[in-house]
Formats: sequence, C-alpha cells, structure tokens
Amino acid sequence: MKIVRFAAPKGSIHWGIVEENEVKETEGLLGSFTGKNFVLSEVRLLAPVEPSKIVCVGKNYVDHIEEMDGDVSSLPKEPGLFLKAPNALADPEDIIPYPAFTKEFHYEGELAVVIAKPMKEVPEDEALNYVLGYTCAFDLTARDAQREDLQWIRAKSADKFCPIGPWIETRLDPTDLGIKTEVNGQIRQNSRTSLMIFSVRKILSCISSFMTLFPGDVVLTGTPSGVGELRRGDVASVTVEGIGTLKISIGSQK
Amino acid sequence: MKIVRFAAPKGSIHWGIVEENEVKETEGLLGSFTGKNFVLSEVRLLAPVEPSKIVCVGKNYVDHIEEMDGDVSSLPKEPGLFLKAPNALADPEDIIPYPAFTKEFHYEGELAVVIAKPMKEVPEDEALNYVLGYTCAFDLTARDAQREDLQWIRAKSADKFCPIGPWIETRLDPTDLGIKTEVNGQIRQNSRTSLMIFSVRKILSCISSFMTLFPGDVVLTGTPSGVGELRRGDVASVTVEGIGTLKISIGSQK
Repeated sequence: MKIVRFAAPKGSIHWGIVEENEVKETEGLLGSFTGKNFVLSEVRLLAPVEPSKIVCVGKNYVDHIEEMDGDVSSLPKEPGLFLKAPNALADPEDIIPYPAFTKEFHYEGELAVVIAKPMKEVPEDEALNYVLGYTCAFDLTARDAQREDLQWIRAKSADKFCPIGPWIETRLDPTDLGIKTEVNGQIRQNSRTSLMIFSVRKILSCISSFMTLFPGDVVLTGTPSGVGELRRGDVASVTVEGIGTLKISIGSQK
Repeated sequence: MKIVRFAAPKGSIHWGIVEENEVKETEGLLGSFTGKNFVLSEVRLLAPVEPSKIVCVGKNYVDHIEEMDGDVSSLPKEPGLFLKAPNALADPEDIIPYPAFTKEFHYEGELAVVIAKPMKEVPEDEALNYVLGYTCAFDLTARDAQREDLQWIRAKSADKFCPIGPWIETRLDPTDLGIKTEVNGQIRQNSRTSLMIFSVRKILSCISSFMTLFPGDVVLTGTPSGVGELRRGDVASVTVEGIGTLKISIGSQK
C-alpha cells in the first residue's frame, strides 16, 4: 500500500492511498476512505510524514566511511546517530534553494523508515513490528558547515535539507533493496541495503533504548558511497527498489 | 503574564494564565478565557511548551568554557548550536529516572526562550519581537555519552533530558537576570544572563539565518559555570530572576 500526503488541485491538504493512477482520499493518515478520489497526476505530492523528530544514522555503509576518510579497520559497534529537525522537510519535486552559507552542498540518498506506534526499549527481533513503512529521502548536507560547526545542526537541519517521498510503501522487506542516486541523469550512488553495517531492526532498537519514537517519526538509515556536490540547476533523484523515486531540483541562491 | 500548561485535578490538560493563587483556563495557548478557574496548588503544572524543535547553545558563558577545558583565548564568533528532540521534555516537579546508559549524568541550568511567531532571517535588532516569553530549563546531559558518541543525541535528547517550566513569563527583559542552580539546597551555579557571550537577540538571529523557528519552539541559551553530577535521589532546581523556579528529582535507575 502506498500512503501519500498531497495538495489537491485547489490547494487543500489531505492524506490518501495511491492505486494505479488514482489517489483515494482518507480521513487523515490511516483513516477510512472519504469516498473522494483524485487523479494522481493532478495532485501535488507532499512529504508523506509529519514527524516529531527525524533520527539519522551517520555512518552505515562501509564504502561511505572509506570515502569520508574514516577508519574502516575499526567499524563502529553501535549506530552513530544524529537529529534533523522537522523544519528541514521538503516535498517531492521541491526546488531546494542553494543555501547561502555553504560552498559544499552535498546529496546523500537514503532509505527512510516511518514509525507506526510508540516505541521504547524494543528488542531487535520485534523492531520491525513498529514500522509503518518505507520511503526515499535525501539527507542534504552542508559539508563545510559539518566540518566547522560545534554540532551538525546547520549542516543537516537547515530549511529543506530533508526532502522525503514520494509515498510510504507499507509492504516491503527492507533487508536487501537496491538504492540509487542520480544527478542530472548520471548514476552517482548505486548500492543495496544489504550492505548496511547496522540493519533497520538494529538501528530502531538502538534508538528506542534511550528515546521514545512516536507514530510518524522518521529514521534515515545512512548513505552508501558516491556522495558529492550539488550545483545550482541540478536535478537529483534517489530511487529505492520497491518504493519509487524522489526527485528534487536545486534552485539559485536564495 | 505567566502562561501555564497544566493537568486539572481530573487529569485533563489545559492552557491557562496564573494570577496569584489562581489559574484561569484559556482556549489553548493564548486563547480567550473559558471562564473556568482552578486553584494553582490543585493543578499539576506541565512543561509550558509543545515545540516542533528545541535549539540549544553549547558554549555561551566564558566561565563554563573554562571549566570544560575549552580555550577561552579564542572565543567562538558564532553561537555553537545543537538540537534536543521534543521527546526530551519533562515537567516541573518531574522525577527523572537515572539513565541506564550513563555514569555521568549532569545538570545544566538555563534560561529558555519561547518563540511567538514564524521567524526566518530576522536581524538582531528585531529578534525580540518574535519572543513569546521566557522560562527555566535544565539541559540534562550524559557527559560520558557526549564525549564518546558521533553527535550529542543520546547525551542530550534521551527521554526527560529537557525539564522546562514552571511557566512562560511574557513580561521580561532577558539581558541581565540572575540565574541560579541548586542541588539538594546547595548553590552550584550562580550567574547572570549579562555574562552570556551571545545575547538572546544574537542567538535567535543566528538560528533564523538558516532554519525557520515556529510558534512554540524553544531555544536554550547555554549554561554558566558550576555544572556537575546528579545522583539518585537528588533534588535539583534552577531559578531565573523574574520567572521562578523549576524543580526536578532524580529517580532510581529505570
């Protein structure tokens, strides 16, 4: 099932379910059908989440640690986590203004997990029972600010630094999915979720060991190798097998 | 004016205004009076905020940088910022379980700012126009996790690591207020907001330069010297002149 949040042609915002070329409106996320249907191509898809927080994994593919000059001889024993704030959310097809404060604006394509119910101190083998579904995300990053600042807030949580979508796919096994990032049609990242150092269930269990995850909260699972710069006018997309493609454009400096 | 969020004797949750020993219920935050009043001592005060994010300043008093072995010969030119997630909120009088993952659980008493309206790219001299009011907060910190982890999420955003209250004081000039932290009745931190490296208006302007602050969002302005450990059974309080006192207790390990 594909869950979407969308703006109807007149601008009002709704939740719904995609079936082929149709969007069936629901009463809120996971509510019953209202009976009102829209043509998929006539609505504007929005980030399909309204999270209280976005938790991310910093280093979760060996090849990405290598390219960031990390030491792969001693891999982390626990997921390295950080936060993105909800102001960072951006929609599918959104234009992301090139941020004024950075000269190194980087894409990181990722698999995102959406939480279904409150989750605290949940063991690994039960963790996937708390998942609503999966979607695609960009962990946009100002690499220079990431190096220079006390913590990664400006580097990771500036407005529109977390495009997400196009929808939540609820029927999916996250353990071995292709994940691919393209910029202007050229493949830049091409990996599989089976190459994660920490599995989705391990990541969720670790987070829940110290903080409660709430329904709608989002977890970004890390990026494979091939990260690189975005320039004004670039079109970037991340495609996760079994979900679909999230596409964004980079605008001129705001 | 003192704005409170509170649980009525029967458990229902409301917003209101404190006048002497009475709480006058309002229709939501800043709504009109409902006509229903409560005796202050008969309600349970809650964290007086429902933020989409909590932004904090890491090093904002020279004496605290010294005690953390920081280099004070070259003070930061911009506020060092980080996030706390909303799951970290805790209420006045709350019992904070001693976290299982730390052996160095520290208090940091702080002045907290609550935002009134959407704030993006606002210059310093207009920043205070976007403030709803001020309250007291603890930036509770697992110092060992802060040293060891990739970023400060477990160290700063574990459940109940951000007690806040007792109310939002709307009529206050934040530039020179006494701020005092006590543990079991002994003074541990005793400073003035005039000793901040970055003023409230500077902090807010800096944050708004890259991320939109929304109504109800919270900004913690840093802690003076005197941070230290909390132990099971401790009672800790932070008092800010012109606001009042936020008191918490430390429980046994959960």
